[in-house]
Amino acid sequence: MEYKFSEGIASLKPSVIREILKSSGNTIPLAAGNPAPDAFPIDDVKKIVADVLENDPILALQYGITEGYAPLVAELTKLSKEHYGVGTDDDKLIVVSGAQQVMSLLCHCFINSGDCIICEEPAFIGALNCFRSHGAKLVGVPLEEGGMNLEILEEKLKTEKNVKFIYTIPNFQNPAGSTMSLEKRKAVYELAKKYGVLILEDNPYGDLRVSGQAVPAIKSFDDEGIVVYSGSFSKIVAPGIRVGFVLANAEIVAKMTVAKQTQDVHTPMLSQLIVYKWLTECDYKAHIAKIVDIYTRKLNLLCDCIDAELSSFLTYQRPEGGLFVWAKLNDGIDMLGFCKKASSAGVSVVPGNAFLADGDAPCQYIRMNFSTPSDEGIIKGVKILGEVARSL
Amino acid sequence: MEYKFSEGIASLKPSVIREILKSSGNTIPLAAGNPAPDAFPIDDVKKIVADVLENDPILALQYGITEGYAPLVAELTKLSKEHYGVGTDDDKLIVVSGAQQVMSLLCHCFINSGDCIICEEPAFIGALNCFRSHGAKLVGVPLEEGGMNLEILEEKLKTEKNVKFIYTIPNFQNPAGSTMSLEKRKAVYELAKKYGVLILEDNPYGDLRVSGQAVPAIKSFDDEGIVVYSGSFSKIVAPGIRVGFVLANAEIVAKMTVAKQTQDVHTPMLSQLIVYKWLTECDYKAHIAKIVDIYTRKLNLLCDCIDAELSSFLTYQRPEGGLFVWAKLNDGIDMLGFCKKASSAGVSVVPGNAFLADGDAPCQYIRMNFSTPSDEGIIKGVKILGEVARSL
Repeated sequence: MEYKFSEGIASLKPSVIREILKSSGNTIPLAAGNPAPDAFPIDDVKKIVADVLENDPILALQYGITEGYAPLVAELTKLSKEHYGVGTDDDKLIVVSGAQQVMSLLCHCFINSGDCIICEEPAFIGALNCFRSHGAKLVGVPLEEGGMNLEILEEKLKTEKNVKFIYTIPNFQNPAGSTMSLEKRKAVYELAKKYGVLILEDNPYGDLRVSGQAVPAIKSFDDEGIVVYSGSFSKIVAPGIRVGFVLANAEIVAKMTVAKQTQDVHTPMLSQLIVYKWLTECDYKAHIAKIVDIYTRKLNLLCDCIDAELSSFLTYQRPEGGLFVWAKLNDGIDMLGFCKKASSAGVSVVPGNAFLADGDAPCQYIRMNFSTPSDEGIIKGVKILGEVARSL
Repeated sequence: MEYKFSEGIASLKPSVIREILKSSGNTIPLAAGNPAPDAFPIDDVKKIVADVLENDPILALQYGITEGYAPLVAELTKLSKEHYGVGTDDDKLIVVSGAQQVMSLLCHCFINSGDCIICEEPAFIGALNCFRSHGAKLVGVPLEEGGMNLEILEEKLKTEKNVKFIYTIPNFQNPAGSTMSLEKRKAVYELAKKYGVLILEDNPYGDLRVSGQAVPAIKSFDDEGIVVYSGSFSKIVAPGIRVGFVLANAEIVAKMTVAKQTQDVHTPMLSQLIVYKWLTECDYKAHIAKIVDIYTRKLNLLCDCIDAELSSFLTYQRPEGGLFVWAKLNDGIDMLGFCKKASSAGVSVVPGNAFLADGDAPCQYIRMNFSTPSDEGIIKGVKILGEVARSL
């Protein structure tokens, strides 16, 4: 039988990252994005799960409501307000199956095929593919020092038709590692308001700051229901449990709840109970402090190695947090050739064009990750990258 | 800000079931569909989870691949072939976050707004809402003795434009409780082949047979990649862990994998490991036999009570399995009025029009569930329904 796929799905190409990772099974994984294995609160999870299954097994195994386990929703609503200053009386929060689901639900609720989404250039590949799969037109706005280029952003808002939202990771962006300045956050908010479009503020890495000062969330300025704020427990508890949340105007969240019901009914109860009890019964602040220590060490190790081995071949800015370093190979170096040769030599890095709205545009960047490889892997991996660069 | 929702989402009405359940907090839940609390393998799950978190915590907490935990995929592929005769060399199986996600992924992969989906009439409300949320046009084909009316099915396949698939629950259908005969399964398959449309064969209740003989799956005839087969562990392990699977032609499953990656990346690892170890290390056949015993008792109890209390007010067929009884109130009884009065009197049942492609069409049916209420609840609930019927 010949299959006629939907417009959005038919347009999708296989993920460059997936292909590179597939062909690089035993390489040092500078291309990855997994949390460090020693960053998981294993003992907390063990204790919580044993306790839940002993004292409340039916709660953990029975259907839950789509909005999420009510005490977890209440706790997240409180913490979002207290810690990040986000959420008003007009807003509502629901639990989702990882922050990826927020993108999916927002597209489900707002995107008709052909509608436009404005993305930072570069942007998270999982977001770009999600948007493409809904048939959205992607329009990239270059990231500069401190965030998107505001002139180009306004130009796109003025000229593109049916722009539904602006997608941004303001803290330690994936892949660029950069953080949006307070001034740009305010300016982006004002432009979204002026042109009547939403902002999807995706904040999976916000707690992973290793230097500098925290910047208020865009959602914290939002008194008009413009910002859809997405949070994740993948980087501070564990990605394998798939728990995140979305906080937005109640009218939007009501539609996202209906959409979530049609996607997966609800997020697994055991996953939700792990997060709830971790937040309310464990010393989660101490655990986050421990993770930040781990990533401070690994971020600085990767950057020190790059400075020692690769400084004549590329430029980059040391990020203040997150999991990634985004580096521009000098003109004249063939970026894709470098990535392929690195892979053959035993180190995987991600070619930067994977993160562009137009994946065929010229690109000199590569993304390197420091959370997945061991410290020894980072040292050895960058040494090999140096040899590859010198050999080209 | 004024929100412009997508066509599909904007068209959705709030679920009738949800509204009834909301307004019936303390009623006897004949409207529900949850497994019986004593049908969960609590001790197995406790043992499995303790073992996994002790011996392989990183596997349980780290990112997994979108296709699902490879040993679980292999085990499900093997069991599907051995127990149900489904799956060929051209097929592929992936793990999903509950069978609801199969509907969502299939729509994501095939439905452009305005495309048509043919449904049994009545059909599962969660499926109807999923299809509506993607902007699909729903066309209902009446269920009769032994399955859909084949003349009307062919008429619709001939006249409707852009029919993408036929949706069916062949075993113990929700809500109708009926099972499609072997002859109709073959005829539906041949019609789908003739008109070049897919079949979504949803089989969440297949293992819950309390009488009669098992009928081969439609997928077992499929040598052309027409049937997308959906399985679930919600009714035989637990719905709260959200694990199901889809088995279909590899080309379709490749696209569904990409779509799943954009929806939730992967199904939680702990949930997958529970199912994997339950299938490979526990006496799961004994557990299913125990569940079937529970539901045999409860199905017969509900039907015996209906026969005693309600036989002059409605007609129905005793189902051979599943979780539901679908009953037609006699002409002259106001169906919605009956449901509302029952709710006020302390018993919730679902008005049948919730399950129609056109929810405003006249309908004399109600759906009753026997898995969620206690045995005492069933006895008392039907007694109250009898009083309500006599009072009308």
